[in-house]
Amino acid sequence: MTGIKRLVLDVLKPHKPSILELAKAISKLTHVTGVNLSIQEVDTETETIKITVEGNDVDFEELESVIEDMGAVIHSIDEVAAGARLVENVETLQDR
Amino acid sequence: MTGIKRLVLDVLKPHKPSILELAKAISKLTHVTGVNLSIQEVDTETETIKITVEGNDVDFEELESVIEDMGAVIHSIDEVAAGARLVENVETLQDR
Amino acid sequence: MTGIKRLVLDVLKPHKPSILELAKAISKLTHVTGVNLSIQEVDTETETIKITVEGNDVDFEELESVIEDMGAVIHSIDEVAAGARLVENVETLQDR
Amino acid sequence: MTGIKRLVLDVLKPHKPSILELAKAISKLTHVTGVNLSIQEVDTETETIKITVEGNDVDFEELESVIEDMGAVIHSIDEVAAGARLVENVETLQDR
Amino acid sequence: MTGIKRLVLDVLKPHKPSILELAKAISKLTHVTGVNLSIQEVDTETETIKITVEGNDVDFEELESVIEDMGAVIHSIDEVAAGARLVENVETLQDR
Amino acid sequence: MTGIKRLVLDVLKPHKPSILELAKAISKLTHVTGVNLSIQEVDTETETIKITVEGNDVDFEELESVIEDMGAVIHSIDEVAAGARLVENVETLQDR
Amino acid sequence: MTGIKRLVLDVLKPHKPSILELAKAISKLTHVTGVNLSIQEVDTETETIKITVEGNDVDFEELESVIEDMGAVIHSIDEVAAGARLVENVETLQDR
Repeated sequence: MTGIKRLVLDVLKPHKPSILELAKAISKLTHVTGVNLSIQEVDTETETIKITVEGNDVDFEELESVIEDMGAVIHSIDEVAAGARLVENVETLQDR
Repeated sequence: MTGIKRLVLDVLKPHKPSILELAKAISKLTHVTGVNLSIQEVDTETETIKITVEGNDVDFEELESVIEDMGAVIHSIDEVAAGARLVENVETLQDR
Repeated sequence: MTGIKRLVLDVLKPHKPSILELAKAISKLTHVTGVNLSIQEVDTETETIKITVEGNDVDFEELESVIEDMGAVIHSIDEVAAGARLVENVETLQDR
Repeated sequence: MTGIKRLVLDVLKPHKPSILELAKAISKLTHVTGVNLSIQEVDTETETIKITVEGNDVDFEELESVIEDMGAVIHSIDEVAAGARLVENVETLQDR
Repeated sequence: MTGIKRLVLDVLKPHKPSILELAKAISKLTHVTGVNLSIQEVDTETETIKITVEGNDVDFEELESVIEDMGAVIHSIDEVAAGARLVENVETLQDR
Repeated sequence: MTGIKRLVLDVLKPHKPSILELAKAISKLTHVTGVNLSIQEVDTETETIKITVEGNDVDFEELESVIEDMGAVIHSIDEVAAGARLVENVETLQDR
Repeated sequence: MTGIKRLVLDVLKPHKPSILELAKAISKLTHVTGVNLSIQEVDTETETIKITVEGNDVDFEELESVIEDMGAVIHSIDEVAAGARLVENVETLQDR
């Protein structure tokens, strides 16, 4: 199956609901095979988290709904992989 | 099986009971396949430890009970992975 | 099959269409097996992204059309791999 | 088999008996499959060593006895892994 | 088959023909299984590229002809591997 | 088979016999499967080398004899692994 | 087969014959399975190269002859591995 294989998102969320609840909700989406949520920064009212979603033909609109239903906001999409095979970002001589 | 595959916790605990006893207690939880406890900082009365729990459909409430029964407190959940497959946090160009 | 196996491009694009749409469009090209888009820098009107395309006998003209149809411009081709087998850039003593 | 899978210890010992003898003695314990001893610091009368013990259901009391019988003292337990599967300490965004 | 297995070259070339054309031309040589071209530095008239060629019994004269036919010049051969098996450069204590 | 699986030694030796002869002599010992000798520092009369010996139930006395017969002296044993399985030194949060 | 499995040499050579010719000549030696030559430093008349030779029971005298026949000189042997199995140099806590 083609379509989106991986999405890496920078997300701002209130402390509640917790990242556990958000992780479970995302993992239940139909084309998602797994999700990783990592805390980047904690502030008094909010926290910045990094979400890595992997699957086959991941539906961004569905994903965005689940995230926004939890009161969170997507700040940016930092990486996308699409196609029949997951391709990693390759370090070149220009990245050094 | 879906649900929580990995949890990384930042925990403050008294020196006793030891991390050996806490490790054994966590490893006996039904959906836990393994646990790693690493000492981060030692103070006169307490120690800060990092707990990595892996399993299938790990029950956070059960885990929290076992930790609190040992007189320890969860300071933060630093990482969660959920779904049919364990997804790692992916380093992007924005993390450099 | 021989021909181009991997292309790494430095691309400047307007914020819209998003990298999701660009990723999907590139992944649909006939000889492309997968593509990775990573955000390098974000400015008010534009963003600089790094595109890694892998496949068998990737057609650069087709790829360039898809990118330009989205209002984006290829600034440079940073790496190319071609042949029957994908060869990685090897670090030598002269690179240190 | 569950129980302790790995223990990492910080140990202070006199120069004699040598780390060879201590390694052999530890490796003979019933649930130990292997042990690694690495010299961390050497002083006039003593040396600080790091001991990594792996096995299935490693018995800490037995291990402690063998170490103390050699005139050495366990300063701290730096890492413990327990369960059906050996789980490694995972680096998160909070460790950077 | 023995002979040259890998060659890493430091090459100066005019901007045109592009590295795509050079990559395709090199990949068509009889004993070449794959080639990687990476941009090292771009100047107004020229660019310095690093070429990694792998194959069985690679013919340096043929390779040099293809490169020079594109108006490019080999500045140096930085690494060569030859024999029945590709041997990597091994880091020793003297390289640190 | 249990016993010593790996030994890492810090050795001072005269320039002659060469490390080639010492490597061959060590590799012929009954329980040794392989040995690596790396030059650490060269002085006018002597050189400091690091010896990594791997095998099953390596006999330290035999090894020491071979080393001393070549006019060399063991300065320290830096690492020992013993048991049914070779266990590596594991990096913990305390090593950072 | 036992004997020398790997040799890493520091060699000074005139610019001609090139490292290509030296690589081919070394790869033709009976017990050599592969060789890697990497340029370390280039001077007006000479160049310093690092040679990694791998094989089974590599004959150092033969190797030295081939190198000297090309007008080159072995400055030092930086690493040797010998035995039934190639053992790598292991990093210990003392190397940090």
